[in-house]
Amino acid sequence: MKILILGIDGYIGWPLTLKQLSIGNEVFGIDNLSRRKNVSEMNSWSAIPILSIKDRIENLKKIYGDKINFQEGDLLDKNFTNNIVKSFQPDSIVHLAEQPSAPYSMIDQEHCLYTQQNNLIGNLNLLYAIKNYAPNTHLVKLGTMGEYGYDAGLEISEGFMDIEFRGKKATIPYPRQAGSWYHWSKVHDSNNIMFACKLWGLRSTDIMQGIVYGTRTTEITEEKNHTRYDFDEAFGTAINRFCAQAVINHPLTIYGKGGQTRGFLALNDSIQCISLLLEKPAEMHEYRVVNQFDQQYNVAELAEKIANIGNKKDLEVKISHFENPRVEKEQHYYKADHTKLKELGFVPTRNIDDELEIMIDDLLNYKERISEKKQSIIKDLKWKN
Amino acid sequence: MKILILGIDGYIGWPLTLKQLSIGNEVFGIDNLSRRKNVSEMNSWSAIPILSIKDRIENLKKIYGDKINFQEGDLLDKNFTNNIVKSFQPDSIVHLAEQPSAPYSMIDQEHCLYTQQNNLIGNLNLLYAIKNYAPNTHLVKLGTMGEYGYDAGLEISEGFMDIEFRGKKATIPYPRQAGSWYHWSKVHDSNNIMFACKLWGLRSTDIMQGIVYGTRTTEITEEKNHTRYDFDEAFGTAINRFCAQAVINHPLTIYGKGGQTRGFLALNDSIQCISLLLEKPAEMHEYRVVNQFDQQYNVAELAEKIANIGNKKDLEVKISHFENPRVEKEQHYYKADHTKLKELGFVPTRNIDDELEIMIDDLLNYKERISEKKQSIIKDLKWKN
Repeated sequence: MKILILGIDGYIGWPLTLKQLSIGNEVFGIDNLSRRKNVSEMNSWSAIPILSIKDRIENLKKIYGDKINFQEGDLLDKNFTNNIVKSFQPDSIVHLAEQPSAPYSMIDQEHCLYTQQNNLIGNLNLLYAIKNYAPNTHLVKLGTMGEYGYDAGLEISEGFMDIEFRGKKATIPYPRQAGSWYHWSKVHDSNNIMFACKLWGLRSTDIMQGIVYGTRTTEITEEKNHTRYDFDEAFGTAINRFCAQAVINHPLTIYGKGGQTRGFLALNDSIQCISLLLEKPAEMHEYRVVNQFDQQYNVAELAEKIANIGNKKDLEVKISHFENPRVEKEQHYYKADHTKLKELGFVPTRNIDDELEIMIDDLLNYKERISEKKQSIIKDLKWKN
Repeated sequence: MKILILGIDGYIGWPLTLKQLSIGNEVFGIDNLSRRKNVSEMNSWSAIPILSIKDRIENLKKIYGDKINFQEGDLLDKNFTNNIVKSFQPDSIVHLAEQPSAPYSMIDQEHCLYTQQNNLIGNLNLLYAIKNYAPNTHLVKLGTMGEYGYDAGLEISEGFMDIEFRGKKATIPYPRQAGSWYHWSKVHDSNNIMFACKLWGLRSTDIMQGIVYGTRTTEITEEKNHTRYDFDEAFGTAINRFCAQAVINHPLTIYGKGGQTRGFLALNDSIQCISLLLEKPAEMHEYRVVNQFDQQYNVAELAEKIANIGNKKDLEVKISHFENPRVEKEQHYYKADHTKLKELGFVPTRNIDDELEIMIDDLLNYKERISEKKQSIIKDLKWKN
């Protein structure tokens, strides 16, 4: 199978590439390297050092030869996007090439506009490229569980819900009530993709992904294969940030009471799920939505787990409650379906406690790097800017 | 009251300005004049000639002096938008300054991207300008009934619906299932505005408007006050196009069977409704959605009405069925609430049959102008491009 991975240089793009090559698929990767730039704008870097994209690809070429290729470029460049899709003729495209940080999108007007424009226009250019040059391609798009929001007080189904309203029944898109300009950009994308499937008969799987954590996948065994690991306030996500904080004795930064409940997934299982979806694509004309996470936890529970594991390693982990910079409920009902991936064959491979231990051990090797950029852990990015 | 009208040069912006001045309010208008340019891109023009924006404003200044002002500019220009909001300090803003044509947005990739980028980014710049410089302003935003879509087979409520799902009750945003890139741009706008109200406590009324028709309002009594009247395939809307076709013996262009049902509203009543919403604003933090239309008809019924009235005037109106260029159901259930405006005091002033007669009489004066651009009536703008 020929797979085009958009955002190959990212946290998920990189291990997905390793996985797909290891099972014999051909990968063409593109990236505009914006993640590296945007993290350094936060005065931070990846806790675990990663090679330049050039060296990453060269190392893979030594093993996989022509089965791996890379081109630097931007989805906002219509001609670039058209040319890649037209010349590579992918069986599947995994679209990970978006600005992925909610706090980053909330910094100010410039960052809000950048996020919505970058994500929407890149996604629209991609949809047109597929329609014009590879209409049978299966588009796998990374969205987020955050598209649904956390305030409705309803169970969350997978993409669509069956309702009865004033005596009539219908299947409707699950209402989206996102909580940041970033999350709304993903909702806008989802709506545009749903429409493209209806209008042009494209096929797509839209992944509502939970929060991913971890340093390892089956393929990440050597230092040169490591994927990036962000811990700054904008690009680090809950578990990953806490583990990085734990290894440098920085108090774990819980926002408010920490009752926010979210779905979580180990990196290895995220890669497994995406790979499954590639093997079992949506039908032509189908807009398939899956909720992709394993377990749900609230933030305070997670901090507790990380503190316990850290303390066993004599790290003296403290937990602190910070004023919540976000506009969100700190206590809320949360129950979300996540059965479609299981029906396709997903079996979780990782236990969170084991994984946290591996993560902390990995990060202890890079304690100095995290300490050097510890100012990026609390940057006071307020939601209301 | 000080009212900022964005899109003052348009079909609704102009008569709304006349109305607001006539009742003693102060109006500041802005426009980038894109409607004139985009209609001429369609090789068309307004059936009823309109003055240049400079002459329009000068004529008004003779009567209203400093109570009317105008500046040419674009909401995409952040500094322009900030400066206008900051210096004028409007009590209310009516945002009509978007690319308003569904067929235009479907022409090709360039027109799709232009529509979504123009509408979203302009709207986001406006939201930031309000937040930063006039946070108490009431934003009245023009959306469309088309945001809801016509395929769900459910009754349509006004913006939000109360449902029960798996034993839990909630009020959720009415699911949007739009049918063009333009309509989706309005949905994205609505979502961004709903979020801005929640995030920053802004107040807004989002108008889901039906299709507006007519040549006259109470204030349009002389030729120099006329508003534009489009009849080309992209910018002309159903009733207005049919009336222009009727006066030049062009067959009325029904798409498919013509069973598409929509809500309609006379121009005079659209202006009345917007004026009412300005007088009775949303509360701070409130995102208020109203469905703004008077009667619903299907397209074939309307064509019949127009043919009858035309034939009484010896126009020999023919009706033709054209291949439907749109992706839409030609027969569908349609029932939509529209009570909020009535509760605020809206009483329809126009009867459609009387109004059609006035429209045809007005247009007969400009038969030559319509004939000259009759190639723009069928431009074969296909939805699937």
